[in-house]
Amino acid sequence: MNQLDELCVNTIRMLSVDAVQQAKSGHPGAPMGQAVMAYVLWDRHLRHNPANPKWPGRDRFILSSGHASMLLYSLLHLTGYDLSLDEIKRFRQLDSKTPGHPEYGLVPGAETTTGPLGQGFATGVGMAIAQRYLADTYNRPGHTVLDSAIYCICSDGDLMEGVASEAASLAGHLGLGRLVYLYDDNRITIDGSTELAFTEDRGKRFEAYGWHVQHVDGLDGEAVDAAITAAKAETARPSIIVCRTHIAYGSPNKVDTAGAHGSPLGEEEVRLTKENLGWPAEPPFYIPDEALAHFRATLDRGAAEEAAWSRAFEAYAADYPAEAAALRQQLDGQRPAGWDADIPVFPATDGALATRVASGRVINAVAPRLPALFGGDADLAPSTETAVKGSPVMSASEPGRNVAFGVREHAMGAAVNGMALYGGIIPYGSTFLVFSDYMRGALRLGALMELPVISVFTHDTIGLGEDGPTHQPIEQLAGLRAIPHMVVLRPADANETAEAWRWIIEAGRPTSLVLTRQNLPILDRGVLAPAAGLRRGAYVLAGEGDPDLVLIAAGSEVHLALAAAETLAAEGTKVRVISAPSLELFREQPREYRDSVLPPSVKARVAVEAAASQPWWEFVGLDGDVVGLDRFGASAPGAVAMKALGFTPENVATRARAVLDRLGVVAR
Amino acid sequence: MNQLDELCVNTIRMLSVDAVQQAKSGHPGAPMGQAVMAYVLWDRHLRHNPANPKWPGRDRFILSSGHASMLLYSLLHLTGYDLSLDEIKRFRQLDSKTPGHPEYGLVPGAETTTGPLGQGFATGVGMAIAQRYLADTYNRPGHTVLDSAIYCICSDGDLMEGVASEAASLAGHLGLGRLVYLYDDNRITIDGSTELAFTEDRGKRFEAYGWHVQHVDGLDGEAVDAAITAAKAETARPSIIVCRTHIAYGSPNKVDTAGAHGSPLGEEEVRLTKENLGWPAEPPFYIPDEALAHFRATLDRGAAEEAAWSRAFEAYAADYPAEAAALRQQLDGQRPAGWDADIPVFPATDGALATRVASGRVINAVAPRLPALFGGDADLAPSTETAVKGSPVMSASEPGRNVAFGVREHAMGAAVNGMALYGGIIPYGSTFLVFSDYMRGALRLGALMELPVISVFTHDTIGLGEDGPTHQPIEQLAGLRAIPHMVVLRPADANETAEAWRWIIEAGRPTSLVLTRQNLPILDRGVLAPAAGLRRGAYVLAGEGDPDLVLIAAGSEVHLALAAAETLAAEGTKVRVISAPSLELFREQPREYRDSVLPPSVKARVAVEAAASQPWWEFVGLDGDVVGLDRFGASAPGAVAMKALGFTPENVATRARAVLDRLGVVAR
Repeated sequence: MNQLDELCVNTIRMLSVDAVQQAKSGHPGAPMGQAVMAYVLWDRHLRHNPANPKWPGRDRFILSSGHASMLLYSLLHLTGYDLSLDEIKRFRQLDSKTPGHPEYGLVPGAETTTGPLGQGFATGVGMAIAQRYLADTYNRPGHTVLDSAIYCICSDGDLMEGVASEAASLAGHLGLGRLVYLYDDNRITIDGSTELAFTEDRGKRFEAYGWHVQHVDGLDGEAVDAAITAAKAETARPSIIVCRTHIAYGSPNKVDTAGAHGSPLGEEEVRLTKENLGWPAEPPFYIPDEALAHFRATLDRGAAEEAAWSRAFEAYAADYPAEAAALRQQLDGQRPAGWDADIPVFPATDGALATRVASGRVINAVAPRLPALFGGDADLAPSTETAVKGSPVMSASEPGRNVAFGVREHAMGAAVNGMALYGGIIPYGSTFLVFSDYMRGALRLGALMELPVISVFTHDTIGLGEDGPTHQPIEQLAGLRAIPHMVVLRPADANETAEAWRWIIEAGRPTSLVLTRQNLPILDRGVLAPAAGLRRGAYVLAGEGDPDLVLIAAGSEVHLALAAAETLAAEGTKVRVISAPSLELFREQPREYRDSVLPPSVKARVAVEAAASQPWWEFVGLDGDVVGLDRFGASAPGAVAMKALGFTPENVATRARAVLDRLGVVAR
Repeated sequence: MNQLDELCVNTIRMLSVDAVQQAKSGHPGAPMGQAVMAYVLWDRHLRHNPANPKWPGRDRFILSSGHASMLLYSLLHLTGYDLSLDEIKRFRQLDSKTPGHPEYGLVPGAETTTGPLGQGFATGVGMAIAQRYLADTYNRPGHTVLDSAIYCICSDGDLMEGVASEAASLAGHLGLGRLVYLYDDNRITIDGSTELAFTEDRGKRFEAYGWHVQHVDGLDGEAVDAAITAAKAETARPSIIVCRTHIAYGSPNKVDTAGAHGSPLGEEEVRLTKENLGWPAEPPFYIPDEALAHFRATLDRGAAEEAAWSRAFEAYAADYPAEAAALRQQLDGQRPAGWDADIPVFPATDGALATRVASGRVINAVAPRLPALFGGDADLAPSTETAVKGSPVMSASEPGRNVAFGVREHAMGAAVNGMALYGGIIPYGSTFLVFSDYMRGALRLGALMELPVISVFTHDTIGLGEDGPTHQPIEQLAGLRAIPHMVVLRPADANETAEAWRWIIEAGRPTSLVLTRQNLPILDRGVLAPAAGLRRGAYVLAGEGDPDLVLIAAGSEVHLALAAAETLAAEGTKVRVISAPSLELFREQPREYRDSVLPPSVKARVAVEAAASQPWWEFVGLDGDVVGLDRFGASAPGAVAMKALGFTPENVATRARAVLDRLGVVAR
């Protein structure tokens, strides 16, 4: 590290300190401690082009310790990304591009949204899985067009989170050698010293996972540089470099204290820090010209790197035109023409079929034409039916179309986010609906980033049966539907399932596909409305003309509603049955359509779903009713449990009659 | 292991196999593989009395691999718990005491509900924390009245889950030497071999956490016995015994196969297994007399152990009468008289106060009189304000009233469940509301078990400000409110916060206490209704007589509703403002009370909460409106974010006027 290097490092530090101080909010300590490692990484190793943050050949950089956001913003501004000094000065203000924690899509160059600890760490593992899959699929001898490294700076908090532990175990298992993680071992957390709660041997733990582990002085730039070089050379194992640092390095009174974690240093301490580091007291946001010039050289270097990559890609395209065209299309997020040509239509005469089984058939029908569709399961493949059959499971030594995430739902959720972020992938992960609870942190971030991530959640109600209350979802649908941007799709039969997949692949939005364990009849679309109605979220399935009563249901309960409607119709009530696989898509429809499905004049409305009733009141109102399940389930055969807890046509009819009576609606 | 021992082991195996076969559902493989380790543990080490499953001096046994439930049910029946053979024969049937996974409260002798993997493992750590705290508080020289060991059988799936990794790190940090865990290393998961996804060095990982690690042949009873003895002797570190076993041991064709994990063996294979193990083919559920006699000797042994413990307790009581009385009261779940005498009343003239700060003052006011109140935070003590001030943090070497759970929300959630299950503790854990997502798995189990667990969730809306969308909760309140048995309390000011704590301690129910980061005015109860209304969930805070319009709100938004009401009242509208800190408690009130608060005749209803609108439609209906937040937040100072996203008195008034107009309600 020469004098210019030191100047550059202090530029990062002081820009971060000044921005936090101006905002009177933020985390100055981490950027100050991480500045050396980040500088060395960005200056000597990270392959990127600030002028084109979306260049597919770039390395990825993740700041898993997202509270150190000013570190990233400083680097982005200094190296020439589209992030002006004015934006730095507006750190943490409304509508700035410099929010409290890095946000993908808002901050140019932020590869993922971080802040909730552990997520960035695990998301990076997903990026490396995507890198492996695409490289296995498309690289050819002499043509290594895809070889991005995934760099990450992570913190004590990241390493304490279970999601990171799960992801680290998975990364070690898969031998993801393109991962190079720098661990900011500053020994300070919000509560104080890590001695309070975190005294395990971190390096040894990562060795146990199968990682390549190095220990360095994180304030020694040359040592960090050498360690990164060694980590890059280790391609068979992921690498972690334990960098001993000091939070708020440079601050005479706050270095190594928890006080520097989440609060501005204070004006006086900012002054003392600048004095201590030989930095001019004024102006704030001072950037020495020679430092800026050195950082901005990244633009030329990045342009040259991208150009070299493009030439390599052209050479690849010359030798492998079909592969290159397919890869380009995939990286551009385009679907191949006719990708959906083999999606089956399920005849009603086929008999009953679980929607999870129908889903599995659709996945296997489209997979050959759609290499971007790539995912796995959390040790439930025989149950969730998401495996691409006849394709191997990815291992450290062998390529594979299926990922065995292990019993690691949270890491799976973060990893599929990373797979989507990497690009070229339409990722999916699967588990039981009840275990969506384990991955809420990741589901939320995927939704926040509006990623095209598919979560396949099977075993969706008490209808799963004997496994009992621990496995029977109740509140999960309400919880998922409450997440902004999340589309929940709960198809009523095999053909709605096929339509759901068609919509999912086309729309590219964060989606939870919710499926049954148990068999369901295939609805006779010769009599009932077409399954394509799913695309509008809710549609009139049965019942012509002006209804006395509307029954609205989703998934397996649509069949109950149909049966109850038959009973009620026999009594002279005009009943409309609405299949409502997605409340979110229904809300997006024009009012005219919504009113045509749910006529405002009809107050007799009963919703039916074997789950928490909360999401349905919006549609049935004070006059209506919800045949829901606001208690935990029961261990019994599925049909027995359903009956015992009121999910019978008779009970639905009884509850509907009560609504009709209360409203004085006379059956005609 | 003599012949009788082998007979007993096979009795466990075949009872399990027969029950699964009869149910045509369940997991036979794990009980067959775990039978030796479980038998040795229960026969030679576990201190318990089947006639009194609640004896406080007992050791605890947790079957973290809950899918092996028939192992536990076999042991419970055989050793003489109140679980008849008829119940075994009704395995997984409606209303049996033998559900698919062990359920606390339903199955006599089940110490916790297990099934979702990792939970039992982490819950045991909480039991050991409770044991440490009570022992530190009440044991005296020569009087070790509390020295229970916590035993657990766990599986590959448990060890893969992040919640177990977090808990293991915490247990190592705290040196919880009373933990003795037996890991069923059978190398088979649902997807197949653990080679597919789980190839880390497990033993080494636990060494890194600071555990005492042993490796044994799990089918060698004497080796398991010696290892347990060694583990008990190691009191400074938690112990894990890696027991190499074979799933479905005894089944000639299904041993070591994933097919034996989650499906009955099948009639033919049951026959072959019995033949292979020298077991009579008929009758099913056969229990040899000599095996039963040996198992049932546990009753005498247990009675003697309990009697010895009771004598020791009496000797303790003679020397330390005050401590013994306090401990007994605490173990009985009684509150000391006058426990709430020091709960502060907050005068409106004190100015604004964050509800998290008010909560901290209440905790510190009651803690000295209420030693049962014991908990900690997930590395956010300075923010959540839950620390008992002046009391140390528990460490491996020192007692402490506060637990630093570290950045491990999920383990914290499971640990507080374990603390409640152990008894004598009213446990709490705290973090930001948004990170409740990380601990949903544990929150759900606590609710399912109806445990008196308090989750303190602060920073409850976009009002937290600059940290931005990653930290601003949106869907969390809806998600928590959808969990059966969970009471969500979101107080509107300092005095509602005090009332909330009073209710929480008295009620002993699973509760989420949701608090603000930002200051809120203290409502003037001389003008407004008393804060004790919180106990009914929702109450009329302001507005006399028959209203034209009802505004219903919770937490910080109550102040918005009050301000909007003032504006509307000035325009001649009669407005009622309802503070609704708990929708769950409100639903529990008699209809008469509910109608008196929310008169059915008033259709002009507007709910206000800076969170997902989903929970409120039940109360406002199709004619009403919800001023909610169905999008992610924004990084900006809290007040700015609130205003930008529509949480102003003006906007509430505007939305209310629209409702009044739509309904044609004329202001008088």
